[in-house]
Amino acid sequence: MSLNAEIICVGTELLLGDVVDTNSVTISRGLTQLGINLFHRETVGDNHDRLVRVLKSAIERCDIVITSGGLGATCDDITKEAVAEVMGVELELHEESLERIKDFFSRRNITMTDNNVKQAFLPKGAVVFPNDYGTAPVTALTKGGKTVIMLPGPPRELCPMFEEKIMPYLKENFSSSTIISDSLMLYGIGESAVEEKLCDLMRDYTNPTLAPYAKIGEVQLRITASGKDEEECRRLIKPLKEKVFERVGEYIYGVNVDSLERALNLDLREKGLTVSFAESCTGGLCAKRVIDIPGASKVIGTSVVTYSRESKMKLLQIDKNIIDTYGVISKECAFHMAKGLMALSGADISVSVTGVAGPDTDEGKDVGTVFVGVASKNGVRVKEFNFARGRREREYIRALAANAAINEARLEAKDF
Amino acid sequence: MSLNAEIICVGTELLLGDVVDTNSVTISRGLTQLGINLFHRETVGDNHDRLVRVLKSAIERCDIVITSGGLGATCDDITKEAVAEVMGVELELHEESLERIKDFFSRRNITMTDNNVKQAFLPKGAVVFPNDYGTAPVTALTKGGKTVIMLPGPPRELCPMFEEKIMPYLKENFSSSTIISDSLMLYGIGESAVEEKLCDLMRDYTNPTLAPYAKIGEVQLRITASGKDEEECRRLIKPLKEKVFERVGEYIYGVNVDSLERALNLDLREKGLTVSFAESCTGGLCAKRVIDIPGASKVIGTSVVTYSRESKMKLLQIDKNIIDTYGVISKECAFHMAKGLMALSGADISVSVTGVAGPDTDEGKDVGTVFVGVASKNGVRVKEFNFARGRREREYIRALAANAAINEARLEAKDF
Repeated sequence: MSLNAEIICVGTELLLGDVVDTNSVTISRGLTQLGINLFHRETVGDNHDRLVRVLKSAIERCDIVITSGGLGATCDDITKEAVAEVMGVELELHEESLERIKDFFSRRNITMTDNNVKQAFLPKGAVVFPNDYGTAPVTALTKGGKTVIMLPGPPRELCPMFEEKIMPYLKENFSSSTIISDSLMLYGIGESAVEEKLCDLMRDYTNPTLAPYAKIGEVQLRITASGKDEEECRRLIKPLKEKVFERVGEYIYGVNVDSLERALNLDLREKGLTVSFAESCTGGLCAKRVIDIPGASKVIGTSVVTYSRESKMKLLQIDKNIIDTYGVISKECAFHMAKGLMALSGADISVSVTGVAGPDTDEGKDVGTVFVGVASKNGVRVKEFNFARGRREREYIRALAANAAINEARLEAKDF
Repeated sequence: MSLNAEIICVGTELLLGDVVDTNSVTISRGLTQLGINLFHRETVGDNHDRLVRVLKSAIERCDIVITSGGLGATCDDITKEAVAEVMGVELELHEESLERIKDFFSRRNITMTDNNVKQAFLPKGAVVFPNDYGTAPVTALTKGGKTVIMLPGPPRELCPMFEEKIMPYLKENFSSSTIISDSLMLYGIGESAVEEKLCDLMRDYTNPTLAPYAKIGEVQLRITASGKDEEECRRLIKPLKEKVFERVGEYIYGVNVDSLERALNLDLREKGLTVSFAESCTGGLCAKRVIDIPGASKVIGTSVVTYSRESKMKLLQIDKNIIDTYGVISKECAFHMAKGLMALSGADISVSVTGVAGPDTDEGKDVGTVFVGVASKNGVRVKEFNFARGRREREYIRALAANAAINEARLEAKDF
């Protein structure tokens, strides 16, 4: 029998729109992996009565309640008090936690304020998980067949504490079956086209399930199986995965690879190649994303952000005539940017990006017009893209342009 | 009398942890601006019974219910059906919307599928807002003193539709008072230190209110007043703002400026200056963030991503001896990177960043060690930072390093 959980996010700032709730993503993903159902998530402010009401109905409805936030040192932080009240237990000083909090401050040469002592008062009888990333201890309190787990609000504390401490705790105490997912990443096809090609599989399969998720310019397909062990799950996943590959395999750039830059990193490292970028409209985003992957130093060559005409001419040796004749938003400019970058960087693959991210048109070219050039021992080639989607899309167009450039680098590495 | 609203986010993907919910931030912020209370936000999956239950209790509790998601063309999309059921109205074909949907597809040369017709069935009597960003129309249905507003799930559609259509609609129909906020942005001080300096103001003031929000390496202070018009709000805000400036003014880098890069952009444009970056550990993030701001072409000079030793030597003319003697994670390297960049880019302010983003230590330097160099007509200077905060912090350290570099550029521009 699988268990039901519920997440309660506590914090007025979440309701005022000042913070994006990324904690829920971490917790939700973990529960999915463990096969614990999550039907419901609620967000409430730092208000005692409303929090107590939400806690009461959550505890009544489900087996495990996970709270995030409200464990700080200020008087606005009321989660522990509310949980203790609803569960009918007392808060008591947890000496070991107090010592850790004192130590946390002294190691950072910060004076500990009196109100930090409040963070060491924990529900009597709770399992305590010392917080390696902050001062608020994490607790799991079980009473009357119900468990309430309290996590601190800052994602920098919550995410590692949930993954390193709470996931193993939940797995040991609450997870009966094994859940395995394979994630297939697609580039170059939209979500609705994927759905059209796979709708019968998505509808007919129940274990494993097949579900699509739209990312920015990409689609993720997740095949999830539940079984008694990993082997059974793998055996269930295999035939469905093969069917998916038959239908949309040409768009799949990786399995259990989280991004185009990760796939590029793997391809480059496998072949011992390096890549460089000369970026105009993406403004450093391509290099940034490739360097996001640890160990990037093995694959990234000298990259440049040549946003102005002058920098394109000076650094990439583009002839002024080329720019005067064709403009910087042109196939020719992308071609010479890639070529010039190859000379400058000496990387195996040199990729250029130039285009119009908006908000205004440029050189008479529409917002969303993007040229990607690739130079390598195989020569120089340029592709044109159009990413226009209405207004206010500067960030979005740049993300799509970076996708395209990273994907072209990946295709070039494949052919190397 | 101020009204109460509730947000219901519909989508199993939100509960599986595949998507970060940014829609709620947009909606919450808008409601705050309009002075409409939001005490509660819920997330439910694509499940008819649970959605109906959540809708019923939300409609009972509050005046305005705003849903996001579940307006697509597939059979998983059930929000409209559930809302119609709970509100006791029927769905009927809205011809104008059908025409728009047909047009949307034909303009993109995409074949329209039969199930897209479903998107043109709308609650009878609802106010319809044509969707300029996608196919699902936005509707506002009022009955028995309760209003349900349905928005599509994709943030690219929801955010502009909410801001351009729903905000004016809410303002006209539901907002009695004017709410004005001033946002004070602080750099170089932590949230708890801010709270300690301002706790009495935060506690004692009720109109305007003063609230702090921690950003990555920054603190935002929001002063919010409610009054009969803007003038009254401004008059209420003024004395509190002055008190805040008295106490923490030295850390305030901008008022109603959303980021360090925006503040830098304003300072540079005011003085007609340009900035260039030579980035190692930040890998293009500084340039990317400065170019995030529209009109960046006026302020950004040639920037380079010199991640490897070789690229630092070749592009920035750093003597091999310097690197051999001091390493690339050093004050000396940052100094010569900035100096070399000034020669290369000709920008007024040249900023270098080198450091250890992790996950591993480098050259015996701790993860989080970062050097920022600044070269300008005023000479070359270097500052050392340490951003270490436990493990798994590559992204975080790079974000803090980019903050520091952008802030140093800003300080240099101020002194120019």
